[in-house]
Amino acid sequence: MATESVSASLPLRTAKHSTVHPLAPLTAQEIQTAASIIRSQWPANTDLHFKTITLEEPAKAEAVPYIEAEFHGDNLPNIDRRVFITYYLRKTNKFHEAIINLTQQTVERNVRLGPNFHAPGDGEEIIAIERIALEDPGVQAELAKMQLPEGAVVVVDPWIYGADGVNDDERMWQTFFYMRDPENAHEADSNHYALPLSISPVISSDERKVIRIDHLPTGKDNTISGPKPYQRKPANEYIPEAQQLRTDLKPLNVVQPEGASFYVSEQGTSRVVEWQKWSFRVGFNQREGMVLYNVRYDGRHVFYRLSLSDMNIPYADPRHPFHKKSAFDLGDAGAGIMANDLKLGCDCLGSIHYLSAVLNDDKGEPLEMPNVMCLHEQDGGIGWKHTNYRTGRAAVVRNRELVLQSIITVSNYEYILAFMFNQAGECTYEVRATGILSTQPIDEGIEVPWGTVVHPGVLATHHQHIFSLRVDPMIDGYHNRLVYDEALPMPRSDFNPHGTGYVVKETVVETSGGYDLDYDKNRIFKIQNVDVRNPINGKPVAYKIHAPPFQKMISDTESFNHKRAEFADRNIYAVKYHDDELFAGGKYTNQSRGGTGVRSWANRAEKIVDEDLVVFVQFGINHIPRIEDFPVMPCEIIKVSLKPVNFFDRNPAIDVPPSTQAFNKSTLLSETHQQGTVEGTVTREGVCCAAPAASAKL
Amino acid sequence: MATESVSASLPLRTAKHSTVHPLAPLTAQEIQTAASIIRSQWPANTDLHFKTITLEEPAKAEAVPYIEAEFHGDNLPNIDRRVFITYYLRKTNKFHEAIINLTQQTVERNVRLGPNFHAPGDGEEIIAIERIALEDPGVQAELAKMQLPEGAVVVVDPWIYGADGVNDDERMWQTFFYMRDPENAHEADSNHYALPLSISPVISSDERKVIRIDHLPTGKDNTISGPKPYQRKPANEYIPEAQQLRTDLKPLNVVQPEGASFYVSEQGTSRVVEWQKWSFRVGFNQREGMVLYNVRYDGRHVFYRLSLSDMNIPYADPRHPFHKKSAFDLGDAGAGIMANDLKLGCDCLGSIHYLSAVLNDDKGEPLEMPNVMCLHEQDGGIGWKHTNYRTGRAAVVRNRELVLQSIITVSNYEYILAFMFNQAGECTYEVRATGILSTQPIDEGIEVPWGTVVHPGVLATHHQHIFSLRVDPMIDGYHNRLVYDEALPMPRSDFNPHGTGYVVKETVVETSGGYDLDYDKNRIFKIQNVDVRNPINGKPVAYKIHAPPFQKMISDTESFNHKRAEFADRNIYAVKYHDDELFAGGKYTNQSRGGTGVRSWANRAEKIVDEDLVVFVQFGINHIPRIEDFPVMPCEIIKVSLKPVNFFDRNPAIDVPPSTQAFNKSTLLSETHQQGTVEGTVTREGVCCAAPAASAKL
Repeated sequence: MATESVSASLPLRTAKHSTVHPLAPLTAQEIQTAASIIRSQWPANTDLHFKTITLEEPAKAEAVPYIEAEFHGDNLPNIDRRVFITYYLRKTNKFHEAIINLTQQTVERNVRLGPNFHAPGDGEEIIAIERIALEDPGVQAELAKMQLPEGAVVVVDPWIYGADGVNDDERMWQTFFYMRDPENAHEADSNHYALPLSISPVISSDERKVIRIDHLPTGKDNTISGPKPYQRKPANEYIPEAQQLRTDLKPLNVVQPEGASFYVSEQGTSRVVEWQKWSFRVGFNQREGMVLYNVRYDGRHVFYRLSLSDMNIPYADPRHPFHKKSAFDLGDAGAGIMANDLKLGCDCLGSIHYLSAVLNDDKGEPLEMPNVMCLHEQDGGIGWKHTNYRTGRAAVVRNRELVLQSIITVSNYEYILAFMFNQAGECTYEVRATGILSTQPIDEGIEVPWGTVVHPGVLATHHQHIFSLRVDPMIDGYHNRLVYDEALPMPRSDFNPHGTGYVVKETVVETSGGYDLDYDKNRIFKIQNVDVRNPINGKPVAYKIHAPPFQKMISDTESFNHKRAEFADRNIYAVKYHDDELFAGGKYTNQSRGGTGVRSWANRAEKIVDEDLVVFVQFGINHIPRIEDFPVMPCEIIKVSLKPVNFFDRNPAIDVPPSTQAFNKSTLLSETHQQGTVEGTVTREGVCCAAPAASAKL
Repeated sequence: MATESVSASLPLRTAKHSTVHPLAPLTAQEIQTAASIIRSQWPANTDLHFKTITLEEPAKAEAVPYIEAEFHGDNLPNIDRRVFITYYLRKTNKFHEAIINLTQQTVERNVRLGPNFHAPGDGEEIIAIERIALEDPGVQAELAKMQLPEGAVVVVDPWIYGADGVNDDERMWQTFFYMRDPENAHEADSNHYALPLSISPVISSDERKVIRIDHLPTGKDNTISGPKPYQRKPANEYIPEAQQLRTDLKPLNVVQPEGASFYVSEQGTSRVVEWQKWSFRVGFNQREGMVLYNVRYDGRHVFYRLSLSDMNIPYADPRHPFHKKSAFDLGDAGAGIMANDLKLGCDCLGSIHYLSAVLNDDKGEPLEMPNVMCLHEQDGGIGWKHTNYRTGRAAVVRNRELVLQSIITVSNYEYILAFMFNQAGECTYEVRATGILSTQPIDEGIEVPWGTVVHPGVLATHHQHIFSLRVDPMIDGYHNRLVYDEALPMPRSDFNPHGTGYVVKETVVETSGGYDLDYDKNRIFKIQNVDVRNPINGKPVAYKIHAPPFQKMISDTESFNHKRAEFADRNIYAVKYHDDELFAGGKYTNQSRGGTGVRSWANRAEKIVDEDLVVFVQFGINHIPRIEDFPVMPCEIIKVSLKPVNFFDRNPAIDVPPSTQAFNKSTLLSETHQQGTVEGTVTREGVCCAAPAASAKL
């Protein structure tokens, strides 16, 4: 860790189990064993290019009895440990999917997948593609035409090829070319996105060679003018040494003198976190990154599994090859493998606990992923407050939050992902979008309606970020239903003579399908358990979904974008639970054709009332770039909250200790020039914490 | 101040001006002078009941040259100091409005207002109304029928009468009756909202006597059963000593060892705040509470004036007298006069500077309002981050925010109101709704669709909170326009062969009127100055409005609710600036009839393109109570953000110093049981702050 760090003791519960938990991510040893079992299926010296080696989660029918037995301290059932593997025969298009039973040491499945199933990119591949693109003689010839300045350093961003159905059965990469600031070319962190170049080589993944060089349109239309001699452009750097930094920002430290309020129990690669009546198990995998299992409040079931399921980012420029920019950052890359190594004091304030993970590399070896998640508490402002105006007495508590955070870098872009819990029984998933816009060259003096000029000669194209959060609920049990409430005006009548009355009507979602928000009706989706009733008002216990509105996918319904991003057209998808249906866009999104994601599952039109159901919550941003988003964008924040509705019998945060100066130790900034008191003024009497002068009930 | 407080020096700029700033709130002296001038208009011993004695803001045509001269250090023009006063002849319905010119010592206006213009409530009145209701023999007779237990303490909540046009020309109060927990009746902070009673006396404001006793329906319909003998009900207390408090929450302190980063210049009752290139003048008045004037970034004009303009809370129960519950918490009471006396360590963390104010009491005397606003910084998480995956180098800054906060108590309810500024040029208005639900009695075992049973025998009725934020913009100058952007699919064509393209279309709002959001088109409203162009991309400088969706007023368009809350039916109202049009629901909301608010102004259909325009941004919650909202509700948070769009030439937060451990001083929670490293694993190389293992561009 950083030498500047201050170390404090984390309250670790002693529970250490010798057996591997069935939901725990693979250990390094398990990764090695699984890879060697797969290798043993092939002739010696067959060079396998491993993509994913990850836990094949147990069927829910197996896992549920296990976590119930675990909770009640009963004997634990045995569950075979399985591994899900995808791999290529290296430098071929022979893509395989396998399941290894580690417990039995058997291969349960090992098949070559059919056409149009392609693996995500990986680190080895990205670096190789960059090199292949740069070293290609044809590419070099095109670059020569640009007459780049002496010492210019060209940088390549490999992009997943997208899919449009036009000669794209083969697995390919589209590369975009940029240049570091030639005035400062030794600076490896020069922002090359400020200097985009107009060629875009396409590389065959199987053959690992350049198969085509696309030229980018740089005007208002499709015209391709080809490489032009370079004209000097200004740089636009984001690194601090290139800035005149502000000097008037004073430090703000978060100090937890008694340490953090959470507890972490280690179980091999799995951890159980306990905090303020919440408990959950933390997993981590190549694709989703953070996964939460068995989320409980005060021992009561709330969620079986929570994770970010998918993400799609279609771009607005209709021109070739830009129309193929439609990334699936999870399925095409992976929120786990892209996770940042978080550093103390850089990414969080306060007392931080880091969690590491083990994934795999392309050779099937374990890849340590240090500090890919961090756990800390934060102050969320006032939690609740009331002042009795008659006595002047205020009761106030602060809203402490627990944050489990992971930050992913997907080439130019960053996502700061966090699960947040509070003391009022609320669970929030937060995304902060930041990083650098994906840019392309544009001729001087030109404007186009599908993007914004963010720097001379640089266009940032509009794009949508559409996320899918998978919520596998367990509201006091496994059989739940999805309903929605709407607030509707009462018709005028003798009972409603003034036209002011309104009622809430609940509608049950009977079958799997896609459903939308409707703010004009205040439509709110809730996940209920009708078998468990609130002891006071008799209503079913429930959690509601607070999802922000977003513009659904703009690409038309016949487009490949629409067919592939099966979640992007609805606020809510509700499906019946089936094992192995985790990813809203399907298991293999790279150059996918659709038909394997949540819309397809929903189309089964299965009954989902009081069944084991799964809800996919979509949210997003249509990012119309501002120049303020360059050279790096201020975070855009989106949150989805899951909040209890008649799940408790009163405010669950009622027992939070009051907010007091003795506990909070705030500092009064004294005024040297306080406004003088004027004689004859009436001073209000104050009782800690606050007393209003008077209150009218309004 | 609290004895526990730690005191530190506030960086106060020395600028002290001897002249009163034309936008500064009235001083205590000015309040006294103005009141005495009004008194001198009447025969000696005339008992005046003062309502508001507040600054009559100068006409904008006067104020603008002043603040320009001030900014440029030119000679300041003279502006007469004026006072706006409303008052009654005490215990009559004779309601007057006056304007005093203090500079000239003249009465410019002093008129009795016509019928249906009524003043807000005030502290003296509230307490008097409570007493009148309790002491009335008829009321006592009704209470006697309830056979309340020995020692029972009855508590009265006076409510503004609302308006329905039925015999309500006279100014009245509707009172709701509750009881403290009889088992604990000595506890003055017992939550009486858990024990509502079924009588509701109506009191004449002029005569100060009970004129009617309403009985509340407590079943599913309009049936009035009259007072019934009390049956023992459980209490539901919110005070901490009534709870089994959590014991596992560790302290979290915000420490600013070098003090805060903001500067406050005192100018009598007015303050100028400077922070991270932002500057603004803070005012405070009886009705709006906090007002910001002359908001600039780096010296550039952004807003002329910002304030919460109005708020309406209509309730869903159609039955008499509940249908009249439709409060205007600002116009019927006042966000200023209701503001809490904030206490160190209770309401904020960190280094806090408190601002006090002076308002008036009913006798026309100055009323000191200590610590009604607080100013502090907070950490807003990561501001921006990017990691270059090639070098592993992360650049990351935190988002420091400045918060100007005021908390108001309106009888049962609380609003935590805050203006927040950040380093990326963004200004956010945040409302946290908390406090206690307004309750009414309901018979056991009954459910109604217009409310939720939150405690045995207690119904919390659905209600809407509809807010109006007044934005008087000054985007690089006084002549602005309102436009909206929509993201629209491009039709399929040779140019868009794959159906993926989309464009942004800008529409100019030509005339004053009401306008709505449309998330399906990603409709975003922007305030532009077309005379000032971005130096890079030539687009007009602008600020956009990020407003959350909400269900507009549900009461029908013929209802009094609709007529009175003239802002509640549209997301956006845009009007041409006119002096004295500050309050979206009109100047006098108490038992108002409509026709004096923003809808009426908008209906003038004035040209607002490149004019001095004002935008009212509406937002809100339809509060469908959960049992979790009782006995006090966890904060519900709503934010409206104003963000620069092509106003700067790049990310304005690019110059924020990097987030480092040396600055942040976070603490590492060390693990005593760290997961063992496995031989043969590959360790990723890490460069501070973060290095992902690999990145695919997706």
